[in-house]
Amino acid sequence: MKGFAMLGIGKTGWIEKPEPEIGPLDALVKPIALAPCSSDVHTVWEGAIGDRKDMILGHEATGEVVKVGELVKELKPGDRVLVPAITPDWSSLEAQAGYPMHSSGMLAGWKFSNFKDGVFGELFHVNDADANLALIPEGVDPVLATMLSDMVPTGFHGVELADVQFGDEVLVIGIGPVGLMAVAGANLRGASRIYAVGTRPNSVEAAKFYGATDIISYKEGSISEQILELTKGQGVDRVIIAGGNVDTFEEAVKALKPGGRIGNINYLDGGDYIKIPRVEWGVGMGHKAIVGGLTPGGRLRMEKLAKLVSTGKLDLSKLITHRFEGFEHVEEALMLMKDKPRDLIKPVVVVAEDLMEK
Amino acid sequence: MKGFAMLGIGKTGWIEKPEPEIGPLDALVKPIALAPCSSDVHTVWEGAIGDRKDMILGHEATGEVVKVGELVKELKPGDRVLVPAITPDWSSLEAQAGYPMHSSGMLAGWKFSNFKDGVFGELFHVNDADANLALIPEGVDPVLATMLSDMVPTGFHGVELADVQFGDEVLVIGIGPVGLMAVAGANLRGASRIYAVGTRPNSVEAAKFYGATDIISYKEGSISEQILELTKGQGVDRVIIAGGNVDTFEEAVKALKPGGRIGNINYLDGGDYIKIPRVEWGVGMGHKAIVGGLTPGGRLRMEKLAKLVSTGKLDLSKLITHRFEGFEHVEEALMLMKDKPRDLIKPVVVVAEDLMEK
Amino acid sequence: MKGFAMLGIGKTGWIEKPEPEIGPLDALVKPIALAPCSSDVHTVWEGAIGDRKDMILGHEATGEVVKVGELVKELKPGDRVLVPAITPDWSSLEAQAGYPMHSSGMLAGWKFSNFKDGVFGELFHVNDADANLALIPEGVDPVLATMLSDMVPTGFHGVELADVQFGDEVLVIGIGPVGLMAVAGANLRGASRIYAVGTRPNSVEAAKFYGATDIISYKEGSISEQILELTKGQGVDRVIIAGGNVDTFEEAVKALKPGGRIGNINYLDGGDYIKIPRVEWGVGMGHKAIVGGLTPGGRLRMEKLAKLVSTGKLDLSKLITHRFEGFEHVEEALMLMKDKPRDLIKPVVVVAEDLMEK
Amino acid sequence: MKGFAMLGIGKTGWIEKPEPEIGPLDALVKPIALAPCSSDVHTVWEGAIGDRKDMILGHEATGEVVKVGELVKELKPGDRVLVPAITPDWSSLEAQAGYPMHSSGMLAGWKFSNFKDGVFGELFHVNDADANLALIPEGVDPVLATMLSDMVPTGFHGVELADVQFGDEVLVIGIGPVGLMAVAGANLRGASRIYAVGTRPNSVEAAKFYGATDIISYKEGSISEQILELTKGQGVDRVIIAGGNVDTFEEAVKALKPGGRIGNINYLDGGDYIKIPRVEWGVGMGHKAIVGGLTPGGRLRMEKLAKLVSTGKLDLSKLITHRFEGFEHVEEALMLMKDKPRDLIKPVVVVAEDLMEK
Repeated sequence: MKGFAMLGIGKTGWIEKPEPEIGPLDALVKPIALAPCSSDVHTVWEGAIGDRKDMILGHEATGEVVKVGELVKELKPGDRVLVPAITPDWSSLEAQAGYPMHSSGMLAGWKFSNFKDGVFGELFHVNDADANLALIPEGVDPVLATMLSDMVPTGFHGVELADVQFGDEVLVIGIGPVGLMAVAGANLRGASRIYAVGTRPNSVEAAKFYGATDIISYKEGSISEQILELTKGQGVDRVIIAGGNVDTFEEAVKALKPGGRIGNINYLDGGDYIKIPRVEWGVGMGHKAIVGGLTPGGRLRMEKLAKLVSTGKLDLSKLITHRFEGFEHVEEALMLMKDKPRDLIKPVVVVAEDLMEK
Repeated sequence: MKGFAMLGIGKTGWIEKPEPEIGPLDALVKPIALAPCSSDVHTVWEGAIGDRKDMILGHEATGEVVKVGELVKELKPGDRVLVPAITPDWSSLEAQAGYPMHSSGMLAGWKFSNFKDGVFGELFHVNDADANLALIPEGVDPVLATMLSDMVPTGFHGVELADVQFGDEVLVIGIGPVGLMAVAGANLRGASRIYAVGTRPNSVEAAKFYGATDIISYKEGSISEQILELTKGQGVDRVIIAGGNVDTFEEAVKALKPGGRIGNINYLDGGDYIKIPRVEWGVGMGHKAIVGGLTPGGRLRMEKLAKLVSTGKLDLSKLITHRFEGFEHVEEALMLMKDKPRDLIKPVVVVAEDLMEK
Repeated sequence: MKGFAMLGIGKTGWIEKPEPEIGPLDALVKPIALAPCSSDVHTVWEGAIGDRKDMILGHEATGEVVKVGELVKELKPGDRVLVPAITPDWSSLEAQAGYPMHSSGMLAGWKFSNFKDGVFGELFHVNDADANLALIPEGVDPVLATMLSDMVPTGFHGVELADVQFGDEVLVIGIGPVGLMAVAGANLRGASRIYAVGTRPNSVEAAKFYGATDIISYKEGSISEQILELTKGQGVDRVIIAGGNVDTFEEAVKALKPGGRIGNINYLDGGDYIKIPRVEWGVGMGHKAIVGGLTPGGRLRMEKLAKLVSTGKLDLSKLITHRFEGFEHVEEALMLMKDKPRDLIKPVVVVAEDLMEK
Repeated sequence: MKGFAMLGIGKTGWIEKPEPEIGPLDALVKPIALAPCSSDVHTVWEGAIGDRKDMILGHEATGEVVKVGELVKELKPGDRVLVPAITPDWSSLEAQAGYPMHSSGMLAGWKFSNFKDGVFGELFHVNDADANLALIPEGVDPVLATMLSDMVPTGFHGVELADVQFGDEVLVIGIGPVGLMAVAGANLRGASRIYAVGTRPNSVEAAKFYGATDIISYKEGSISEQILELTKGQGVDRVIIAGGNVDTFEEAVKALKPGGRIGNINYLDGGDYIKIPRVEWGVGMGHKAIVGGLTPGGRLRMEKLAKLVSTGKLDLSKLITHRFEGFEHVEEALMLMKDKPRDLIKPVVVVAEDLMEK
């Protein structure tokens, strides 16, 4: 089978591989729609997870089940499914402790395009299929549904980590697709004012659509100073970090109230230390909680978030700015993600013929 | 001063009383808008809190500060304020434990028209004014804002008690004004399907406006059977009880998944025991949590919920079906609440002349 | 192989069965020590789970692994293991939601002597062995460790459900072996005064050993009245129900403060409804949370609780009042549990020869 | 009246001041026992809170009520009371939000020897006396009870922040008196292995008494490496930081499991940034929560923790290594705290004559 792969750090290309083998709990799936992610870019061009040779990329997809292992009970060939980016080992001690995304090691619930071939192949392997794949519910567009693999669950996890409550004022730093879903999630969890930091017109427009009440540009001064001015010196109740780097935490801590929480969902590259400013962190005692985490993944989460789409509570259409048709366009879509043209939010590649518009 | 009072069980009338005295932490307030509540009806005609003689009724209002005690720092005469139905003693041990509504005794954070005269007077007394009154924010209509005294915080407390999470399926039993705010709160906290139980056309329409996806009529069979059918035997993740009586819990437990939660915000009259069905409650071990509670009250909650209104996230207009202008209409509004005509959701009485439409 | 079984409601006896077959994730285990449980008594003589024909009884054991399925990675024949009474399907949606004990249906994480043969056989089957069995840690007596199957995790779950905090006053109703472990757990989680309800001298002595500060006899008046007198009318912060029946909840609610929690871990037989007194439950709004649940089970829980034993924080020896040596004594031990002589807390049956004292 | 004061940064001395004035909610108290704190040392010799001129020091005491304001209901002259170091404004928005220690500003619930004169005077002022002072319960030694002002509530808050659960392995960094109470708290909240970092023989002995199972010396290599070796590479479930500086967080993060929590209760001086190592923090996504906070303070907390002492669950005697008798010895005790002789844990000064041993 064919796949679009990382050949080594900084290098990508199409490769041939044998069809993946599946165990008794697993499934073999073929993609019906795909989306590239900034993580793919980090993986290839920044070497974020170290070197990988001829590893098929991609972890955002919807697909059709082709084959299932003999212990799989709830899926059969032909089923169209949501595929989570994170596919935990549910029997692991970490999953039993409530942290499936760290099953068998920190972050190791992330398997696609990390520890095994990803979804940018003609076929891909899914571990523990009953526990990780969810049927695409009626009323959910299988193309838009690629956003349920990572963008939605990750953005919403920022909201969960920050523990947004009714009426909270929330700062969302970064309004790429994950940040936009953090805005949408904060809005869906009862935030009142939502301050979104970003400048691209497309993203700003989408941020307002998803519930941002105030747009802040980091070009007009420090984020924390702008927030403190807008909140009359009080700061916000919650911060969600969906962009930036290790320095961003300084702004987040300064913009936050005592008793507040910072939820980070951004992959941090570069820098040895996250910077937490000592004084504004209350010399250690300010109750400004700092948490960062990978989204949980798995089937239940897929089902729950998909229901927000099928009931019309969450509209994913504003996330997709570029649509390709045909598996071969995966490369082009990924390059778009790498080059980030100013009008890009997220590209998607339709693979299944019946889903193509032309 | 004049006030509309409970004269004794089953009897109401206008009375004259001296102006309330205030202590160093208190405020004297005059109403600018008022709303009667089903609780006023329970108090007078069902003797829900026992007998009271010549007690001024009412606990839903917005007002204007007339006088403040010498230790009040953040309010001054002329300020227009939100008035919570529940005005706790914030220094009490119960408030320190996180349960201000039970300060100085179970439910005793509820003072208006319970332990002292209520807000249906030309003037009323507010304890610990700095901690209990909030300024009406810009962009919030002071008449609609009467709904922030009790309807919104109580309905939303049901959502907090049931601990609604992203994608949860939620059953809301009862769609009077509090139930409607439970629907709105569940919707604002990320519920997917919201099953609302009710039959009056006005309420049904409002329930859909506030986010209900399915309307259930108890006239068409037992609630739990309808829910189990709609959810393919799974049951819902959460139940909010905003109507019914001690028997309603049987339906709630039957309709609920293991691991789910029931949040009750309904005043329960009649019957010695809440009925929890043994078998469906997992013979004691089904993890179907049952919690019921009075809304917390106080200034912070007022401010937070008001921000949902000022940012346009919560539209209160669908709650008000009947509008009166002039203090003297309090009696008429209360009788409407008592008689519950089919088209009633909630009446409001405008007292301040500058807020009158005619 | 031989096993001691329920032949039908009210009837027990020794039977012969073929050796259990195991799947790729499972293990075959032979007991090294066993303990009967009150649940076995309920199952046989009260028909608590309905009729069962020739089902081997028992769910409390330690054992030695005899054989493992081909996907089992962390266990091998000869390993000596703790066996939880509850062995969930960790990939189920319920487990993903945090409720493994209800995997694949309410209470269905309980499989031994419920949906399949129990541990009172020469061999028994364990599903998902890696996720459910834990090695017996050094320093833990494999005989006493039978108490880790059910008595410790269930008693401690009561403490978790009631959410005991530093300095809380806790009422534990019932001081059979589970109740004693609830006392020990409350003590280990920072309770101050612990009121234990019971009368048998052995149990009372053990309750004091495990941390009870006050012993209450239901023979000397209602529990709630005694509690209200001892707490000067305040009530306790938490109640753990480990004995009694549906009527016991009335006492629990009456003895509890607003803002408190009741954690039930008692199997409730008889009666259609749990009795929650309306008035003392705050007419629905007293914030007296009522939760009841089966213990989670699984390997992580076994490991964590076993560490309390291996570090000497929890001494299990006071639980065992009767010790038998030889597999054939299972019947005698169970009959003891049925007859409950006054000096009984818990019997244990040593099966492995190297663990026998004589 | 006389008081022992900070005259300016680096300078202390005895001064005369007028008796404090009290408002309607306040109390005037005279000390019956006092203890100096490392914070006093930071305040004077490190200028930790900025310059202060002629400010009476001290925030750990028990006392006798001398006078109360006219709105104080639950205290009267002659009452012997526990005095919390933190005395919040309970009506503040921060207290309503659950963070009383930050009432009216970050850390501003700490008033003694910060925003007003402390307890090292012949008399001292207590704000909101009903909400902040607790009667010394029977069976609690008023001299040892000085440890309830700050050492116990702060150490135990570390346990609360780290959210220790049954069977958790906990690392406590620093075994000064606060660290020792963190050990005791972890032990009382169900930790299994408790690794305590320290070297002084007195402290090590006390740490074992309070529940430490393993002692780690930072002199024998990095803390995290020792922990990873002891836990076979797994790390601990929780870390409590009660000593060290901004660099200590690096060790804490490295020693912690994904899904773990760090609770900091240490005042951090020096360094612009807390150092959170990027890689071991899971490049932002490792779910290693970092929280730090000042203890809540107030009466309820005093009462609850005092009950642990009165019921014998917590023995404070191992904390006191040096005992002085007579108010004039405050200076000597403080200098001892400054010089930290190797056998010191905590000094105490008995002021009330009836409590003196000679």
